[in-house]
Amino acid sequence: MNPYETIDSYLQTHLTENLAELTRLVAQPSVGAQNLGMEKCAALVADLLARRGFHVEIMPTGGAPVVFGERKGRNNAKTLLFYNHYDVQPAEPLELWETPPFEPALRNGKLYGRGVSDDKSHITARLYAIDALLDSAGELPCNVKFIIEGEEETGSLHLPQFITANREKLSADACIWEFGGVDHREIPMQYLGLRGICYVQLSVETAAIDVHSGQGGSIFPNAAWRLVWALNSLKGPDEKIRIPGWYEDILPPTRRDRELFDQQPDAAPEYLKMYGVKNFLKGLTGGTDLYLAEVFEPTCTICGLTSGYQGAGSKTVLPAKASAKVDFRIVQGQTIEKCLALLRQHLDTEGFSDIQIEFLGGGPAAKTDPDDPFIQLVVRTAAEVFESEMELIPMVGGSGPNYPFVHELKLPVATAGLGYPDTRAHAPNENIRLDLYLKHARHMARVLTEFAR
Amino acid sequence: MNPYETIDSYLQTHLTENLAELTRLVAQPSVGAQNLGMEKCAALVADLLARRGFHVEIMPTGGAPVVFGERKGRNNAKTLLFYNHYDVQPAEPLELWETPPFEPALRNGKLYGRGVSDDKSHITARLYAIDALLDSAGELPCNVKFIIEGEEETGSLHLPQFITANREKLSADACIWEFGGVDHREIPMQYLGLRGICYVQLSVETAAIDVHSGQGGSIFPNAAWRLVWALNSLKGPDEKIRIPGWYEDILPPTRRDRELFDQQPDAAPEYLKMYGVKNFLKGLTGGTDLYLAEVFEPTCTICGLTSGYQGAGSKTVLPAKASAKVDFRIVQGQTIEKCLALLRQHLDTEGFSDIQIEFLGGGPAAKTDPDDPFIQLVVRTAAEVFESEMELIPMVGGSGPNYPFVHELKLPVATAGLGYPDTRAHAPNENIRLDLYLKHARHMARVLTEFAR
Repeated sequence: MNPYETIDSYLQTHLTENLAELTRLVAQPSVGAQNLGMEKCAALVADLLARRGFHVEIMPTGGAPVVFGERKGRNNAKTLLFYNHYDVQPAEPLELWETPPFEPALRNGKLYGRGVSDDKSHITARLYAIDALLDSAGELPCNVKFIIEGEEETGSLHLPQFITANREKLSADACIWEFGGVDHREIPMQYLGLRGICYVQLSVETAAIDVHSGQGGSIFPNAAWRLVWALNSLKGPDEKIRIPGWYEDILPPTRRDRELFDQQPDAAPEYLKMYGVKNFLKGLTGGTDLYLAEVFEPTCTICGLTSGYQGAGSKTVLPAKASAKVDFRIVQGQTIEKCLALLRQHLDTEGFSDIQIEFLGGGPAAKTDPDDPFIQLVVRTAAEVFESEMELIPMVGGSGPNYPFVHELKLPVATAGLGYPDTRAHAPNENIRLDLYLKHARHMARVLTEFAR
Repeated sequence: MNPYETIDSYLQTHLTENLAELTRLVAQPSVGAQNLGMEKCAALVADLLARRGFHVEIMPTGGAPVVFGERKGRNNAKTLLFYNHYDVQPAEPLELWETPPFEPALRNGKLYGRGVSDDKSHITARLYAIDALLDSAGELPCNVKFIIEGEEETGSLHLPQFITANREKLSADACIWEFGGVDHREIPMQYLGLRGICYVQLSVETAAIDVHSGQGGSIFPNAAWRLVWALNSLKGPDEKIRIPGWYEDILPPTRRDRELFDQQPDAAPEYLKMYGVKNFLKGLTGGTDLYLAEVFEPTCTICGLTSGYQGAGSKTVLPAKASAKVDFRIVQGQTIEKCLALLRQHLDTEGFSDIQIEFLGGGPAAKTDPDDPFIQLVVRTAAEVFESEMELIPMVGGSGPNYPFVHELKLPVATAGLGYPDTRAHAPNENIRLDLYLKHARHMARVLTEFAR
C-alpha cells in the first residue's frame, strides 16, 4: 500500500484552489531589473506563508526585501530550508508573447506567464505539499524554513551578506534549491552545483553631445567604436577569454564529474533543434565534452549592446555614448574580486581606461557532494513520483547564490523542481506543465516526511 | 544708393507672415527614416510653391515623392535650380529637447524645432526672396526651378535615377544647394563639394530564439559577439579602414584645395569646445591637416548598435540577433558599387559570411570648381549682405546627392544658407537664427537678380 495515498489524494483534489494562488502570484509583476512591483509581490508571498501558519518576516536587505518564514514541526531536531525567489526576468520582447506576460493563461495543460516557471510555481507547489501534510497530520513532520529573495534575477546582490548576518535564523540541516525538473526524456535531474557569475555593464562616453557623422567621422572619437574595440579585446572568435590570468585559479572537473556526465545521453540533437542553431562553438559536437564545456568553462557573454540610432532606416550620427551588458560565468576557484580586478587591469593595459565597469551582481560557483545522504534522500523519493531514476548532474551552466548556502550555512543543497526543456525561463512564453507541478508537490511531501525520520 | 532697397524693405516688413509659413512647415513632422508624415509634408511644400504662381508637380520616385516647381521669368534664357529637401532627421533622443521637436518655439531670436535648419528654413527663406522680387517687379528676373526631395536624410536613395529620368525637366544653368551658412566668426562659407556616403546596416542572426546565457554562453553562437568581431575587422583603434582595396582609387586633395584650407583659421579650439571632446583622433591638433582629415579622408562610423537586453540592470540572455548602422563616407574616386563589393568580400574572407549587408542609401562624392563664374557671383553678392568676404571651402565632410547635379545635369553647384555653428542639425534643440534667415533671403534676391543679367 502507498503510504502517501492520503497526501496524493489531497493534492489531486485541491489543484484548482492552489493554482488560483499561483495565478495571482504570476499576475503580480515583480521585475527586479525594472524595480516593478517588488514590494507588492513580497507582501503577497508573505501572505501565502502566513496563511499556512508560518511565522513570517519581511526583512530589508539594502535591495528588494527577503521574505523569511518558519514553522516548527513534529521533529524539532531537523530543519529543512527552502530557497526560492519572487523576482522575475524582464518580459521584453513583449511582441513575442502569445498572451500577455502578466496575465497568466492556461492552454493545453500548461500555464503561461513571466516568472511562472522561474520561480513562482516552485513557491506555490512547495506550499501545496505543506497544505497536504498539514491536512493529513495537523502538523509538519520537521521544522521548515523559507528564504524567498527578490534579487535572484539581478545577481542576488545583497543575499550573501544577508545570509552572513542571519546565520542563526537560517540555520538548518539541508536545503532544497529554487529549481529543478525533468529533461527531454522526462527523467528528473539532480543538479549538484551552479556556475558563478560576474555581471557587469561596460560603458563609455566620448563627447558631450552626439556629432553629425559627416563632420565628425574622421576626427572625433566615437563611443560605439571604443566599445567594440574594448569588447573585442576581451574575447576573440576562438572563444578564448583574453584577459591575462583569467584561467589561472580554475579547478577542473573531477573524475566523478566526468563519470556522471558519461552516463548522460547526448544532448546535442535536442539543443540544436530547440534553439535553431547549426553548430556548437569550438568544434564541439556533443557527448561528455559538450557537457563539460557547457558548465565547467568560464564564459564571456555579451547580453546586450546599445549605442546611437537604433530605429528604422538611417541616421547619420556619431554616438557620444555606448554600453554593453556582459555576463562572465565563473567556475570553481574564481572569485568576483579577482575577476573585476583582472578585467580593469586588462582594459587599462589595452588602452581602454575610458571604459567604465559597473558591477551589476554575481557570486562564485559552488557544488554539493553527489554522495551526500540528503542528496540520496531527494533522489530516492523522486524515483517513485517520477517513475524514473533521478540523474545526477555535477554542475549546471546557470548561476545562483548557492555559494553562501554551501560555504556559509554548510548545507547540502539539493535541486528539485518542475522545469522541463521547453519551459522558456527568461524567454517569451515562459510556461509550466501542470502534470509536473503536481509531481513536484508530491515529491516535496515525501522529502519532508522522510527527512524528518 | 542701394539698388535692393525696395527688396530689403519688403523682407524687413513681412517677416511675421513668412515665419508663420515656416512654423507650419516645421510643425508637420516628416521623418523619412520612420516614414512619418511624408505625404502631408510634400503637399504642404507644393502648396507653398503654388501660392507663388509656380507650376507644381508631386512626382513619385519609388520612395518619398519629389516636389517639383517651375516659374518662368523675364530672362527666359537663364534658369536657376534650387535643390532642397522636406524630410528631416529623427527627433530622438526626445528627452534632450527643451521644447518638443515638432512644436516650433521662438526664444531669444532663434526658432527651435526638428528640421528648422536642415532644411525647412532654407525652403521658406528662398520663397521669401521670391515674394520680394514678385512684389517689386511682378515677375521673376529669370526662370526658377525647385527640386525638393523627401529622402535626403535617408541617403537620397531614389534621387539619382529620378534626375537621370527627368534630365530635360531639370535642365538649368546653375544650382543653389540646400544648405550653407556662417562659421563661428560670422563669415559666410562657400562649400564647393560634398563627401560621398555608403550607409549600410550590418546584421546577424545566430539562433531561432534568445538563449539563457547561463546555459548557452559556452556552447552556442552569440549574435552580439559575431557583430563585434565583424565590426572590429573593419577598423582598428588606429582609425585605418582594414578592408583591402578601400583606399586604392582615392583622389587626393589638389594644391588649390590645400591653399584654400591654409587661408582658414584653426578650427580646433571651436570644435573641442563645441562637442566637449578632449582630443582629435590620429594625433591631429588643428590647422590644414585637421581640415584635410575632416573632409578628404574616407570614414567608417558606427552610428548605432543594437542587440539583446538594453534596459536597466541585468538580464542573463544570449542574443540571437544583433545589428549595427555603419556610415562609410567615401571620397572622390570611390564608388558605391565597388565599396559594397569590397565590404562583402572582406567580411567573407575574414569568416563573417553570416553578417548580412543592407545598403540603406548613399552616393559618390562631387565638387565644383572654385573659379566657376556662378560661384564668383554667389560669393560677390554674399559679401554685401553679410558684410564679409565669403570663404571658399573646397569640400565638406557631410554628404548629399550633389553628384547627379554636377555630373548628370552638368551644373555648377553653389552653397548658400543660414546655418551657423550651433544650429544643431541632426541633434536635439536644432535651431536657426532669425538674423541669418533674413540675410539668406536678401542674398537669394541678389543672386536671382544678378544671375538674370
